[in-house]
Amino acid sequence: MPASAVPTPTLRRLPKYYHYLQRIHMEGQEIVSATQMAEDLGIHHTQVRKDLAATGSQGKPKVGHRVADLLASIETFLNWNTSSDACLVGAGNLGSALLGYSGFDRAGIRITAAFDAHPAKVGKKIHGVPVFPVEKLDEAIRRLHITIGILTIPADRAQHIAEVMVGAGIRAIWNFAPITLTLPEDIIVENVELYASLAIFSRKLSERAKQKA
Amino acid sequence: MPASAVPTPTLRRLPKYYHYLQRIHMEGQEIVSATQMAEDLGIHHTQVRKDLAATGSQGKPKVGHRVADLLASIETFLNWNTSSDACLVGAGNLGSALLGYSGFDRAGIRITAAFDAHPAKVGKKIHGVPVFPVEKLDEAIRRLHITIGILTIPADRAQHIAEVMVGAGIRAIWNFAPITLTLPEDIIVENVELYASLAIFSRKLSERAKQKA
Repeated sequence: MPASAVPTPTLRRLPKYYHYLQRIHMEGQEIVSATQMAEDLGIHHTQVRKDLAATGSQGKPKVGHRVADLLASIETFLNWNTSSDACLVGAGNLGSALLGYSGFDRAGIRITAAFDAHPAKVGKKIHGVPVFPVEKLDEAIRRLHITIGILTIPADRAQHIAEVMVGAGIRAIWNFAPITLTLPEDIIVENVELYASLAIFSRKLSERAKQKA
Repeated sequence: MPASAVPTPTLRRLPKYYHYLQRIHMEGQEIVSATQMAEDLGIHHTQVRKDLAATGSQGKPKVGHRVADLLASIETFLNWNTSSDACLVGAGNLGSALLGYSGFDRAGIRITAAFDAHPAKVGKKIHGVPVFPVEKLDEAIRRLHITIGILTIPADRAQHIAEVMVGAGIRAIWNFAPITLTLPEDIIVENVELYASLAIFSRKLSERAKQKA
């Protein structure tokens, strides 16, 4: 299936289905219908059916899907059953948390090295991942054939570090820095906009407060 | 300005402008034009002008905006210069990182209490914030008049904890759990979908790999 055929909203919903299916699987449920999923998750049943069809999973009419099969389909579809090596730059609060984040394992991303500009952090291990000086970034990416970069540094250094990453062979960047990176078109960039999310949150709060006043 | 008049994409871009303006302010620049901002940030200049106008900031024709004025306008517009008390439930890796995240301070959110189900964490302070047993959540929200809740717990417990929060007086929830919360309509919910972002990232990586194969 070509990239354009998978709508982004479907991709965004799949982890929700996945977590829900994991839970009912743990509870011992073996078969689930799209109707039950739709009701439990508050998503329209035609949408659930479409999303599951996109993963290639086929249920039995009037019976439903095997929960284990659905979990496997989603894992394969999202590339969560293969593994790629990643490095993380910026071992501050957010970076350190991500080094211990179980979501990466499940998503097939293994962080093998972290980098930081502060000498106090270099040489330590955070959640089992060694921290190297940021000057070694280019060399390490080349030597370890790392293809994924995770950016958890301040906005003013993010573009420079992203360019070093790409120059050394990184093909995909998960960016937590609050800037738009300017990189070659064939580089995959996925932005997690914590500040933007906070901006929306704060603004909605202030609007609500004004409505009450 | 009513809520509906501020487009969400504008809200998402404002933190980018803010970080950019902070940087040039630190570098000693006092005046900036929308044209320069547009070029430096890679956003069309008509868009920059519209976004800045939405914050109520008025530059001088042929001169530009005072950087300090723009920073103040964005802070006020995003409600970042008032302060609200928040609590966080789930002091694991992600939760602990958020307790040390400087973004909250700037966004006018002060986390005064954290809660966790694990006895080992209770009674400690993480980044200066005391951790209480989750059983005390309802009582503490009422006693401290907390209005914002931050959810960093697994999906299967998020709905229950969110209901406890709302029952005790929370009006706005920043949700990191990978589920859609079902709550009264007047509760503000802003979801940060780390898993969904990872899903998109992994899928794009696998599509790219297939294109090359």
